[in-house]
Amino acid sequence: MADQKKMVEEITSMDVDFAKWYTDIVKKAELIEYTSVKGCMVIRPYGYAIWELIQKNLDERFKALGHENVCMPMFIPESLLEKEKDHVEGFAPEVAWVTHGGSEPLEERLCVRPTSETLFCEHYANIIHSHRDLPKLYNQWVSVVRWEKTTRPFLRSREFLWQEGHTIHATAEEAISETECMLNVYADFCESDLAMPVVKGKKTESDKFAGAVSTYAIEALMHDGKALQAGTSHYFGDGFAKAFGIQYQSKENKLEYPHQTSWGVTTRLIGAIIMTHGDNNGLILPPAVAPIQAVIIPVAQHKPGVLDKANELKDLLSKDFRVKLDDSDNSPGWKYSEYEMKGVPVRIEIGPRDIENNQCVLVTRHNREKTIVSLDNLQEEVAKKLEEVRTGLYNKAFENRENKTYSCKTMDEIIKNLEEKGDGFVKAMWCGEEACEDEVKEKTGVGSRCIPLIQENLSDVCVCCGKPAKHMVVWGKAY
Amino acid sequence: MADQKKMVEEITSMDVDFAKWYTDIVKKAELIEYTSVKGCMVIRPYGYAIWELIQKNLDERFKALGHENVCMPMFIPESLLEKEKDHVEGFAPEVAWVTHGGSEPLEERLCVRPTSETLFCEHYANIIHSHRDLPKLYNQWVSVVRWEKTTRPFLRSREFLWQEGHTIHATAEEAISETECMLNVYADFCESDLAMPVVKGKKTESDKFAGAVSTYAIEALMHDGKALQAGTSHYFGDGFAKAFGIQYQSKENKLEYPHQTSWGVTTRLIGAIIMTHGDNNGLILPPAVAPIQAVIIPVAQHKPGVLDKANELKDLLSKDFRVKLDDSDNSPGWKYSEYEMKGVPVRIEIGPRDIENNQCVLVTRHNREKTIVSLDNLQEEVAKKLEEVRTGLYNKAFENRENKTYSCKTMDEIIKNLEEKGDGFVKAMWCGEEACEDEVKEKTGVGSRCIPLIQENLSDVCVCCGKPAKHMVVWGKAY
Repeated sequence: MADQKKMVEEITSMDVDFAKWYTDIVKKAELIEYTSVKGCMVIRPYGYAIWELIQKNLDERFKALGHENVCMPMFIPESLLEKEKDHVEGFAPEVAWVTHGGSEPLEERLCVRPTSETLFCEHYANIIHSHRDLPKLYNQWVSVVRWEKTTRPFLRSREFLWQEGHTIHATAEEAISETECMLNVYADFCESDLAMPVVKGKKTESDKFAGAVSTYAIEALMHDGKALQAGTSHYFGDGFAKAFGIQYQSKENKLEYPHQTSWGVTTRLIGAIIMTHGDNNGLILPPAVAPIQAVIIPVAQHKPGVLDKANELKDLLSKDFRVKLDDSDNSPGWKYSEYEMKGVPVRIEIGPRDIENNQCVLVTRHNREKTIVSLDNLQEEVAKKLEEVRTGLYNKAFENRENKTYSCKTMDEIIKNLEEKGDGFVKAMWCGEEACEDEVKEKTGVGSRCIPLIQENLSDVCVCCGKPAKHMVVWGKAY
Repeated sequence: MADQKKMVEEITSMDVDFAKWYTDIVKKAELIEYTSVKGCMVIRPYGYAIWELIQKNLDERFKALGHENVCMPMFIPESLLEKEKDHVEGFAPEVAWVTHGGSEPLEERLCVRPTSETLFCEHYANIIHSHRDLPKLYNQWVSVVRWEKTTRPFLRSREFLWQEGHTIHATAEEAISETECMLNVYADFCESDLAMPVVKGKKTESDKFAGAVSTYAIEALMHDGKALQAGTSHYFGDGFAKAFGIQYQSKENKLEYPHQTSWGVTTRLIGAIIMTHGDNNGLILPPAVAPIQAVIIPVAQHKPGVLDKANELKDLLSKDFRVKLDDSDNSPGWKYSEYEMKGVPVRIEIGPRDIENNQCVLVTRHNREKTIVSLDNLQEEVAKKLEEVRTGLYNKAFENRENKTYSCKTMDEIIKNLEEKGDGFVKAMWCGEEACEDEVKEKTGVGSRCIPLIQENLSDVCVCCGKPAKHMVVWGKAY
């Protein structure tokens, strides 16, 4: 118990200091370690295993829709980055520049990719000639670099891991449909597998990706009421095709510009999982991406038969689940804390008396509920508990979001709600003018915004200027 | 047939110009495409799918041995790279330097990792304190950058994909055993799954990895008689630990330096597959890493029932194999050439007469042998053919290597063999002196060398100086 106490005491309470609580978790759950390069972290085995599960899940979804993985170089020549005007303006201020190869200065400096639209475009121009070459549905799993001033593990780092989908189509309709389809893939993954409710929306003109015609995003609300953009999907029209001279011969034998998309999610999702589900005992992982779904902890393991039985359960359960048996010398109490910290969804306790009664104890991480179950149908019982954790996590996150979503008709209402109830999503009507967008940001302190695909009519007039409203916007303070 | 001819004509014959044949294959089989950055290539879907299969196979082998994946940053501060003297000397001349983040010059320049020993060491120093923290068995799948002057797709590129294993152990014995174990994993993978015979050997002192106590390698002989180093495994002793101040408290409560290893294989393996197995009709892929293991080509597909049957076979075979049905409008002849070019191990032809007779035709890529088989046990027949391809490829490669391995007792014999029989492996005795090593290189033109773990005694004296021999060395001209 001494060990257990010590461990729990080391985490800052989330109510005292949410930022510190977050940093404690990423360190104590051994997700990351800092390095001597600011904003660049080591993703440790437990953290990387979560990412591998995210990767595998999404990769299967992408491939099922016909996408193929490729790998582009990490370097972009300056002249290539500059080919699309909006794009270079958006990214040039935050790229890392390679100027020397060995001791020789380079003829042209190269940036480390902040994103790879320009590389894909150069490639498309080489390989696309006819309508028969379309569509290309590509994706890559790589790391990218953006030289951010302020950094936080997973949430904002100078190098981060992601996937970037890049597709090119004969028509605008096809490309728009792809953009929407991938937004739905992300939303379904977040809601079904990460147990994290999201709002699907469109970004305003002033907030689009550099070079995009339209940007869609999914927005989640963290436990502290701040908003986190969890994935984006962009429709580019034919702007990049024109800038890079990508053309194809249509069926009617005419030269046409194809239409493009790109879409991505990053290791940021791990930050979102932590801040959506975690509690004061540590991480809580949704079962779909938990490296250990169930941990078996033997009680009085020195007694005859206990470890044998624990091993037997492990072998049985390993067929269906990711299971770990901890038979180390640490006390059961220490182990309970350790795997709570690591967010393992289900704990299985088994001791001499349990064995006598042909039973064991299942404890679900999110609510610490204990259930005694028979060993006769343990697989089904564990499956049921994992599903309980998933649903429980989703409902808790959903409830948190509902409690922290404020429908406001006036600027004063926005300010009052945020002041009195704390940070959250603010729903408000908007006329569509950038001036009002800026004014809301400035006066209320919210920065994140999107136009949900599912609209509500809260009032007929803009919350800011009182002129006729065009959209309902969801605002939030952004991570 | 016109199409088919055109396609085959486009590949240079390997006997006319092996280098050009190689480049033709990587392009025509759509493995890569060049970019505007010299030495950096796009790995296209078909090439990347081969890499994904290599990754999956090796990753399972690594994890089964207890290794865990992590992800280190891609940047190394100059001062960190410089901490181990031999290491920095080996790598500094060929690294890419990042000097600016956005428009700001960096306080310290960062190199893009050419390999990650220094990053792992910095991390070890942070997380290893006690014997209970050892061993750590880590691996990462990333890309690295080495600013090579001469570049060729897969074989030598400025950026390449690889895995780098990094482990740290309490004792020298454990670390040496790990080094040898991983060499064996590579050798088994190459021989069993890539059907590529390899020589396991130790590098000479002058040819070790920068910072290693000893370097082991597997060497394969390509179709043209040139040697290719296909994987390396290094034992570091405690040199890095001392340079980076990594120490642990032993069971006996003493401060000790741990012992390290690293080991890696790269996308170079794809180059090795091409040059070991390919022929004048294109690529030939060993079944274990073939993205398409069997391609179904319907004959007279406009006739009733043909496509239905082809689809039925596809559904049946997809349970066990990676199968593609090509029901495009191209002629069967064109398709035959196309999938020969792409190295698909087994082709399945099915036409109206076959359907009548409840049969189909299987063609194995490596020898183009046709077999008529019953549809009743097609799964077994395809499995048998895939195994035939694997064995056939291995035997052909083994025979090529035997035919091109020359045991030589004098320098003249070396020169004569290479001149008369062409490039190949040269086995010769060596006294162990670097002067003789240099002389052999200079006078005979061979540059690659290793001391095979399985030694033969060809003579008692050094091939060069005539003094007592210590080792048999296998020499070759290196890729």
